[in-house]
Amino acid sequence: MTKSVIVPLADGFEEIEAVSVIDILRRGGVKVTTAGLHPGVAKGAHGIDIQPDTTLDTALDMKADMVVLPGGMPGAEHLRDDPRVMALLQRVHEQGGYACAICAAPMALGAAGLTAGRTVTSYPGFGDQFSHGPYVEDRVVVDGKVITSRGPGTATEFALTLLETLVGPQKAREVADGLLAVRSPAPRVV
Amino acid sequence: MTKSVIVPLADGFEEIEAVSVIDILRRGGVKVTTAGLHPGVAKGAHGIDIQPDTTLDTALDMKADMVVLPGGMPGAEHLRDDPRVMALLQRVHEQGGYACAICAAPMALGAAGLTAGRTVTSYPGFGDQFSHGPYVEDRVVVDGKVITSRGPGTATEFALTLLETLVGPQKAREVADGLLAVRSPAPRVV
Repeated sequence: MTKSVIVPLADGFEEIEAVSVIDILRRGGVKVTTAGLHPGVAKGAHGIDIQPDTTLDTALDMKADMVVLPGGMPGAEHLRDDPRVMALLQRVHEQGGYACAICAAPMALGAAGLTAGRTVTSYPGFGDQFSHGPYVEDRVVVDGKVITSRGPGTATEFALTLLETLVGPQKAREVADGLLAVRSPAPRVV
Repeated sequence: MTKSVIVPLADGFEEIEAVSVIDILRRGGVKVTTAGLHPGVAKGAHGIDIQPDTTLDTALDMKADMVVLPGGMPGAEHLRDDPRVMALLQRVHEQGGYACAICAAPMALGAAGLTAGRTVTSYPGFGDQFSHGPYVEDRVVVDGKVITSRGPGTATEFALTLLETLVGPQKAREVADGLLAVRSPAPRVV
């Protein structure tokens, strides 16, 4: 069955991180729905405006195997401070799905109570802004159903790890080859 | 003086390639103007719609130090087949600027007559679709004022090479560090 992923887009999202995740998961056959925190375009941190597929209000009740939060500032703060994002993360997590975030956005997973005791990473300097278990500097970290990563330069590795998690290593390898991606070190799996 | 770059966006553009170039050049202080081939959003090859800064009609007369063409299909064909894109490339080239393309889009540089005799690369399989000098498989190739690259997985390296070309290695290194980018092999410089 096709896997479904929701990517909330807040004003101030990091464009490379958001687009790498959406593009790469779609290349792998995953159904990705981008959900703006408000109607209209979501404004990127570097002036790139994306028209989301739907609004977060509409996406709140959608079935999802995974939620992925792009970083970027102030986008990650907007995600952390939005009760709907917290509710979405908690609901998907309780239903056995994955909660994933990159760059500054792991703090939103923390605010949702999903990183307590978990091994995580984030963009440098953001590790002290939320509760978690061991903080590591691996480029991608998989601790059960919580997957974190570090920044725009790790976004392709992060997205390929998410794809492998959802659809398996063979498809992820095919997509990586199609991208002409550099073969990257395996994620830290806790 | 601030460097200026125009990035034409055609329906069917490859999102990782476009966004990596725009985001990374802006991080480095370059003025980037995205120019849609028609009014309204530009539709990405993987369903990500971006609102361009302006239209190509408006951008045609803008001063620019560089034009960068994202790949993606059918986006690259739309670029190749649009006389305005050809005119923009030729005008900037004649004024001493750079003509750059990634993935399938080097064929648009070819259609504009800018790759004759030049060493180029492209996404695999597109090398026979335009006239050029030596075809190589390096991830980024700099031949004078013509810079080409291969695909979404080489987009960060491509963008960092463009940034270094415009503003120098120190700024490009700072931006690469801020991205947490993997240190990549140097481009082939002919």
